Amino acid sequence: MTVTTPAGFRSAGIAVGLKSTGKPDLALVVNDGPVPASAAVFTSNRAQANPILWSRKVAQEGPARAIILNSGGANCFTGDFGYDTTRLTADAVAAALTASGTATESEEILVCSTGLIGTGDQAFRDKIVGGVPELFNRLSATDTTAPAAILTTDSVEKTATHTGAGWTIGAMAKGAGMLAPGLATMLVVITTDAQLDSDALDRALRCATGASFDRLDSDGCMSTNDQVTLLASGASGVTPDEAEFAAALAAVCDSLAAQLQADAEGASHDIDIEVRGAASVADAIEVGRSVARNNLFKAAIFGNDPNWGRVLAAIGTTDAAFDPYQVDVSFNGIRLCHAGAPDRPIGECDLTPRRTHVEIELFAGEHAATIRTNDLTHDYVHENSAYSS
Amino acid sequence: MTVTTPAGFRSAGIAVGLKSTGKPDLALVVNDGPVPASAAVFTSNRAQANPILWSRKVAQEGPARAIILNSGGANCFTGDFGYDTTRLTADAVAAALTASGTATESEEILVCSTGLIGTGDQAFRDKIVGGVPELFNRLSATDTTAPAAILTTDSVEKTATHTGAGWTIGAMAKGAGMLAPGLATMLVVITTDAQLDSDALDRALRCATGASFDRLDSDGCMSTNDQVTLLASGASGVTPDEAEFAAALAAVCDSLAAQLQADAEGASHDIDIEVRGAASVADAIEVGRSVARNNLFKAAIFGNDPNWGRVLAAIGTTDAAFDPYQVDVSFNGIRLCHAGAPDRPIGECDLTPRRTHVEIELFAGEHAATIRTNDLTHDYVHENSAYSS
Repeated sequence: MTVTTPAGFRSAGIAVGLKSTGKPDLALVVNDGPVPASAAVFTSNRAQANPILWSRKVAQEGPARAIILNSGGANCFTGDFGYDTTRLTADAVAAALTASGTATESEEILVCSTGLIGTGDQAFRDKIVGGVPELFNRLSATDTTAPAAILTTDSVEKTATHTGAGWTIGAMAKGAGMLAPGLATMLVVITTDAQLDSDALDRALRCATGASFDRLDSDGCMSTNDQVTLLASGASGVTPDEAEFAAALAAVCDSLAAQLQADAEGASHDIDIEVRGAASVADAIEVGRSVARNNLFKAAIFGNDPNWGRVLAAIGTTDAAFDPYQVDVSFNGIRLCHAGAPDRPIGECDLTPRRTHVEIELFAGEHAATIRTNDLTHDYVHENSAYSS
Repeated sequence: MTVTTPAGFRSAGIAVGLKSTGKPDLALVVNDGPVPASAAVFTSNRAQANPILWSRKVAQEGPARAIILNSGGANCFTGDFGYDTTRLTADAVAAALTASGTATESEEILVCSTGLIGTGDQAFRDKIVGGVPELFNRLSATDTTAPAAILTTDSVEKTATHTGAGWTIGAMAKGAGMLAPGLATMLVVITTDAQLDSDALDRALRCATGASFDRLDSDGCMSTNDQVTLLASGASGVTPDEAEFAAALAAVCDSLAAQLQADAEGASHDIDIEVRGAASVADAIEVGRSVARNNLFKAAIFGNDPNWGRVLAAIGTTDAAFDPYQVDVSFNGIRLCHAGAPDRPIGECDLTPRRTHVEIELFAGEHAATIRTNDLTHDYVHENSAYSS
């Protein structure tokens, strides 16, 4: 169980033929309350898919009662027809909920899509809208099929749970490429039976995503379809301490971010770029991100080459406060560059393990941040050139 | 002949053992006047190699009499020792010039280095400084050996010339990776026998590089060692119209930029991203650069996939003025996206030719710019993971 771990939720996942492989491609999560609340954060890309345009409105107006997600097509840049498809999808879910006894408006249904941009024709619409009745019939409070139905090029399902004092959190995520900030390219659904209002959920969610998904930058490419949704049912009857809930939510998001990093398309290294001694957290993030986005650095890591020169060349492009000639750079605990000059021999550094730790000490302050990224590999090029996405 | 095409210049290139291959790795260009003038532009990376730190001072103080360039080591992040190496190199050239009858200060000698960051030990210094006498003896007004001595991973020499009314321009360049703005990673030496003062040269050079090298963004990685130098001898006795000279210089720089693009490491496509209908040139450049730096787009082009969705996802991350849902995108003349929705079938578009033209119409104004880039290929990953640079 994942999103159904907390009480008050049912979910399901089925195949409606959006994926040519015949794998599951449509998922639904219903919040049965009794005290529904919700919050969501969206991609900051100005090019936004139709489900994002729709879901932003839903998220603004009040608690969402359900979220429906499809893989196998992004419904992005598909024009008014695509927007109508999203609305008709919400209509179908609202109608099914209403028919089952819970009067629901379409404007209470979040919609997410993921897959190839430009995909969203009549057949796409018919498969999704036509699939809603069966999907609704499959809803279960012990469901385990939803996480698989939201995957695209992911190789594994990503889920996380947390157990608090009388309340729980459950989550599922998809994302294996286009992982970049504000947010990484992904869909995430998080559920909780804690009793919290939407404002409290929103504060906790923004804090948690800012320190997890927003610091994951696998390939610098920002998606058009990102959405992280948090649904609370209140079914536990417990209202946790807000700080305690926020910490638990942050841990769940951090776990999912690590899973997304570990499953990034074609990657052979998971690289944590830890920036220390920064004048501000923003500086630490900017410095870390400049390295995470540097193709020469990323290719070097693929080749197990601890090329600290490429790190310095990358961070020199930032506006962060530091003296490039005072910086220390370590790879996997070996300090290869001290005060902007060679230190230990690079032969002492072993980059063959998948986990790679790059530590950059700026000597400019007391702040720190870690950016997660991956290396640039032949498999990355292959996956992103041989297949449209 | 290249940098020696204009009267008043001598050059030479020799091998001093900096490259393990034994290929030429040290070049010298001497400006014999009679009216020497010079201008130079440098990398905007804050991480700057020792020769950049040195040459900035030389360029500020007045006409340079010579420029010495080595490949096989960047002399960057090599500390005070590395800076002393650069100064000693300039000392050696100044001494040789003075001994030959032209009294010259070290502060009139520009120095450039290119190769692996962190390289610049005693052996590196000894080979360069020790090589200056032989290099000086090889100087010739009909030299053709200098262009080869500045290459690193380049597969071909890059040269360009222009013939004006009684005056000429000659140029040589190196650069095959780390090509990114402000400037691309490269060394360029341009000579002219036109009689112009350093201020006029500076104006023409900044204008020419802004519209050529600054719009070349092969892999988004900014170098620590970039330098473009323009030396004028005045040997023709002709002072050209400044606008005419600027246009000729721009054409020379544009030719070199195209040659750098065509020789980019591992590339299989030369991609010109033409942004039209922008509210400003700055907007057009920002939009074009966002596409040029998008790995998913670049990998798609490698796979001959005209993935216009990735273009829209990339430009949506910019702050440029436009409506993402009104944009047109064409690949090689076929409009695949109209008003932010699918237009012609992608099957009509043939991306097998090396030259690729992506046209983005923003419908937001009257300005335009073209950014040159390359695709992301297996060979790029191989060259930048298997070898340090």
